[in-house]
Amino acid sequence: MDRTACAAFLRQRDNYLILTHQRPDGDTIGSAAGLCLLLRQMGKTAWVLPSLDANQLVSGYLEGCVAAEDYVPDTIVAVDVASLKLLPPNAEPYLGKIDLAIDHHPSHTPYAKEVLVEGDRAACAVIIWELSQELGVMTPEAAAPLYAGIATDCGCFVYPNSDARTHRAAASLIEQGIPFAEINKRHFRTKTRTKLHLESLLFQQMEFYHDGTVALATVSRALVAQTGATPEDLDDVAAFAGQIEGVRHAITIKEAEDGDGSCHISVRADANYLNASAVCARLGGGGHSAAAGCSVKGTIAEAKAAILAALEAELALQ
Amino acid sequence: MDRTACAAFLRQRDNYLILTHQRPDGDTIGSAAGLCLLLRQMGKTAWVLPSLDANQLVSGYLEGCVAAEDYVPDTIVAVDVASLKLLPPNAEPYLGKIDLAIDHHPSHTPYAKEVLVEGDRAACAVIIWELSQELGVMTPEAAAPLYAGIATDCGCFVYPNSDARTHRAAASLIEQGIPFAEINKRHFRTKTRTKLHLESLLFQQMEFYHDGTVALATVSRALVAQTGATPEDLDDVAAFAGQIEGVRHAITIKEAEDGDGSCHISVRADANYLNASAVCARLGGGGHSAAAGCSVKGTIAEAKAAILAALEAELALQ
Repeated sequence: MDRTACAAFLRQRDNYLILTHQRPDGDTIGSAAGLCLLLRQMGKTAWVLPSLDANQLVSGYLEGCVAAEDYVPDTIVAVDVASLKLLPPNAEPYLGKIDLAIDHHPSHTPYAKEVLVEGDRAACAVIIWELSQELGVMTPEAAAPLYAGIATDCGCFVYPNSDARTHRAAASLIEQGIPFAEINKRHFRTKTRTKLHLESLLFQQMEFYHDGTVALATVSRALVAQTGATPEDLDDVAAFAGQIEGVRHAITIKEAEDGDGSCHISVRADANYLNASAVCARLGGGGHSAAAGCSVKGTIAEAKAAILAALEAELALQ
Repeated sequence: MDRTACAAFLRQRDNYLILTHQRPDGDTIGSAAGLCLLLRQMGKTAWVLPSLDANQLVSGYLEGCVAAEDYVPDTIVAVDVASLKLLPPNAEPYLGKIDLAIDHHPSHTPYAKEVLVEGDRAACAVIIWELSQELGVMTPEAAAPLYAGIATDCGCFVYPNSDARTHRAAASLIEQGIPFAEINKRHFRTKTRTKLHLESLLFQQMEFYHDGTVALATVSRALVAQTGATPEDLDDVAAFAGQIEGVRHAITIKEAEDGDGSCHISVRADANYLNASAVCARLGGGGHSAAAGCSVKGTIAEAKAAILAALEAELALQ
């Protein structure tokens, strides 16, 4: 359905339950909280399914929006959920009963009765904002989580998806008088001591190849134990080596946490010079040309040898 | 003068020379390059005075715009220059002859015959963009440095000055089809190996006080020598400790490079809990409530003792 039809749908229905995806990020949570509060502004009853694995960076946006266990909804809406298998376990009762999916993933696999998918939007929260324009509703309380959803999905307007539409949506939300600078500080200008410790050790152990154009970082179980790094601290560790001046391609080897003798490898490549997906395909993995991954049985040393050989083979083809 | 009068002024005059400030940042350079190219689009002759101390991060924006030594201008315009003493030495022949100053610093001290100062704009480049709207001119070549000027002055839309107007100006410039993602990567997602080395050692030597709410980092001459850090690597070192979760106040002690036995201290404070200016005033310095500085004669150990005593005295008053 198009945006106008979707707005009509939202006006018509009531008693909403909004679903977010597993391992929720700022966009799915921000979109859910924003949509919930906009629906309430329209006089509707609306709640969000509890997100049991939300970290404290994003869970606060759901305050006042979390559905009670005995809530019986009439209309189920999923936001930022690209496929059914990304729903959390507590969404199980609603599989097959989802009335509407609002999403910005081009890879969206339809599962809902109605879908509004805009694959060129930087965040699902941009689509929710566009719907709010269509519906003529907005409050500062709804604007804050929607801004957080947009900002977190575009790296605070750094990434290539930060196009003119993204900035205009942000401008409109900021005009509601939201504490955008505090939101930005929390998401983009705060690191835990543990994470800085991890980064300082990662840097000291980093290896460089091909005149410094290839960086290789290793996250051993010992390093994780030494620093006490949590999964959140490790979240974007694959991007750490990629920020170094002169580095085109960044390889990160993570030793499996359960010690089953395997390693996960992520490759970030400058796609002008290397196809990351082709490198990882040589070891049974895949992904995109700029970011790909694979798993390798063996020690870190064996994983390193394997990925460097795959890299050399692909670089030789360029 | 107001924006309309300034646009009329720019339409009327010709043979422009544009001045930037010393130790130029992205905003003064981006504003100068953008204005120069817009004036040329209007059929004017326009050049920018060479910026002899521009680093390679920003100097490229001036390509094709730098005035020859024998250029004789009729109209002198300063951009992003808050006071005469901020002009570089090679602007000396033009002091007292500046026809127009365009600036966004609320502290602007008038020195030009005409001034357009908009103290609530996030960057001088926002004002140049607003003038372009008034003048009905813009090209992708002008839009790129103006975008860079805006983005660098608001930390890529992270800082509190990233208001709705800032985002709308960015949206409009992005619509010109500029490589904004490359600009962002260069300015915001790239660190030198030297800088990462410095940060990793800084972190390992960092001290915490008051339940982790106060962080103290020390940049000794030995650390600078060990890492080979340049002045650019040290540019925003005072902000490094401030990003740590739980840290409200960050103190950075920098040993003087010339080894005259003094230290420069910078204090970044959460102004809700501490007045940084009052802390530094106890040691003969000053600044703002959120960021202040002072110099102390003596060794790093002596500087540390002095600033911690000043901090304790101010915290006791809260």
